[in-house]
Amino acid sequence: MLSNPMFDRIQGDLELLEEGLQEAVTSSVDLVTEVGIHLVTSGGKRIRPALCFLSAHSGPDFDVQRTLPLAVALELIHTASLVHDDVIDAADTRRGSITANAKWGNQVAILSGDYIFARAFRLIADANYPNHVSRRLADLIGNLSEGEIIQDHAVYQASRGYEDYYTRIQKKTADFLEICCELGANVGGMSDEETRQLGLYGHCIGMAFQITDDLLDIEQTSERIGKPAGNDIRQGIVTLPVIRALEVSPDAAELESIVTNRDMTDEMVKRALAIVKASDGVDFAKDKADDFLARAKKALPDNLPPEIRETYMDIADFIGDRDF
Amino acid sequence: MLSNPMFDRIQGDLELLEEGLQEAVTSSVDLVTEVGIHLVTSGGKRIRPALCFLSAHSGPDFDVQRTLPLAVALELIHTASLVHDDVIDAADTRRGSITANAKWGNQVAILSGDYIFARAFRLIADANYPNHVSRRLADLIGNLSEGEIIQDHAVYQASRGYEDYYTRIQKKTADFLEICCELGANVGGMSDEETRQLGLYGHCIGMAFQITDDLLDIEQTSERIGKPAGNDIRQGIVTLPVIRALEVSPDAAELESIVTNRDMTDEMVKRALAIVKASDGVDFAKDKADDFLARAKKALPDNLPPEIRETYMDIADFIGDRDF
Repeated sequence: MLSNPMFDRIQGDLELLEEGLQEAVTSSVDLVTEVGIHLVTSGGKRIRPALCFLSAHSGPDFDVQRTLPLAVALELIHTASLVHDDVIDAADTRRGSITANAKWGNQVAILSGDYIFARAFRLIADANYPNHVSRRLADLIGNLSEGEIIQDHAVYQASRGYEDYYTRIQKKTADFLEICCELGANVGGMSDEETRQLGLYGHCIGMAFQITDDLLDIEQTSERIGKPAGNDIRQGIVTLPVIRALEVSPDAAELESIVTNRDMTDEMVKRALAIVKASDGVDFAKDKADDFLARAKKALPDNLPPEIRETYMDIADFIGDRDF
Repeated sequence: MLSNPMFDRIQGDLELLEEGLQEAVTSSVDLVTEVGIHLVTSGGKRIRPALCFLSAHSGPDFDVQRTLPLAVALELIHTASLVHDDVIDAADTRRGSITANAKWGNQVAILSGDYIFARAFRLIADANYPNHVSRRLADLIGNLSEGEIIQDHAVYQASRGYEDYYTRIQKKTADFLEICCELGANVGGMSDEETRQLGLYGHCIGMAFQITDDLLDIEQTSERIGKPAGNDIRQGIVTLPVIRALEVSPDAAELESIVTNRDMTDEMVKRALAIVKASDGVDFAKDKADDFLARAKKALPDNLPPEIRETYMDIADFIGDRDF
């Protein structure tokens, strides 16, 4: 589990979260429990439940036991969605751990994902939250699926442009972080206006988070990120630095011919990475991420408890550091 | 859609169901809508929503608009679960229609399944049912996943026996039909005792339904059932007639050597079918199905409206006819 100092103030909550996650995936079928425990202990950053706890702490009615099922459900939904993504991508590792599909096969992985989605909804039903909560979570899963389907449909197309990219990362990541903040604030008893502001904070750090994550695929070595560098390019997924390079690079035509080629070789991926890095694509994307982080900080309600506000600021800076 | 005369009394409800299903899968992403419409119009028998409507009709508070979201959600959950099963089995056709995985690939099929699960929970949240309803539905999806994982783990093992088989078909089918009756009765305002009785009816016809479905795989031709006969045997899934033949057939040893062989040929599947058919395995399974149907009829509450009781009896007989 994440032991990032920025989460010190909610360390107790996050310890309860770990217990809650393991309890939630425990089944009468041993194999189901085994897969579930593997999945919830494979090094997630816990950014979603952390945002949920923080936002709940921001309100006058904070109660850790009242917030816990929501925080667990959010991390379970994230986990289930990654399990299905890994089946789709035939990925062998995630965060340095072996994936469920690689370890137990696609059948077990697909069904375990379904099981974990179901456990999330079970927790929410048991917690007697207002219907608004399950409605938002259901829409979240719908959006995640739609976002992935859109992304799949846009692969190996260079011409999708900025708007398409922003829509995609909103559905894939920003909506999720927005919902974590919004529902946490809701359960913590914040006003509608403050809830909206925290939701906007979540949206903005979500956009920055995904831009940064996409940047890692361009900038970092394979060992560092636990998957091959240039993986997005290889899969035909065009991210912000690439879109920028396609606009401004003198080698844009060559880059386009590579990223639209379904049979691209390792050499071609390397060449595409080199073209992107030689352009201002990386800096451009970093600037966009910074813009979102600035908007996120500005969105924070005025009257937050100081130590909570500081943690929100730390999270924004953490994402800005781009080294996780 | 099913135009079975036994459903004449709820024909209006089932027409609303069809509209509700199509509306529920409609998305802002055209491809998602296209896949969803294909899936909900590919010839489902609608037995689950029909049971839900009937049970709701049985109560004093029946209101079709109040029941509709539940009935739609039940059919959506069934649909999503079949979509994922078809990915797992790499099935090309179901009910004579092309599967989502065959038509759009595994990625779209897995994500569409997730989308459809999510839409079911969205409907339930919007309908403001008691939390009990979403709790049971979440557990249902959990059970379906566990049931499939257990089944996968038991493949190519001849020694699992009757108890294992009954547990498996309960998780796979009987629990589902039980929940359809129980939640329908709930929403229709029936007493706890009557709800329990209708739940038992659902459980028993579910057991009979799955035994019968498994029998079709032994008895019918490929054209008739829309998938190759002996498919279960080929996949290493041991069903009731086979378990019986393994107990009583003079060729039990040969049968066991075939059903435990992961590399069985078409000839071996044919031989296994012949051994099962030469034993009393088929009649044994038919008798068990009849026992469950008799228990189902007996479970029906005394004071049901006569035309509703008659429909419940027709459904039991329909399953008993084993020719669908």
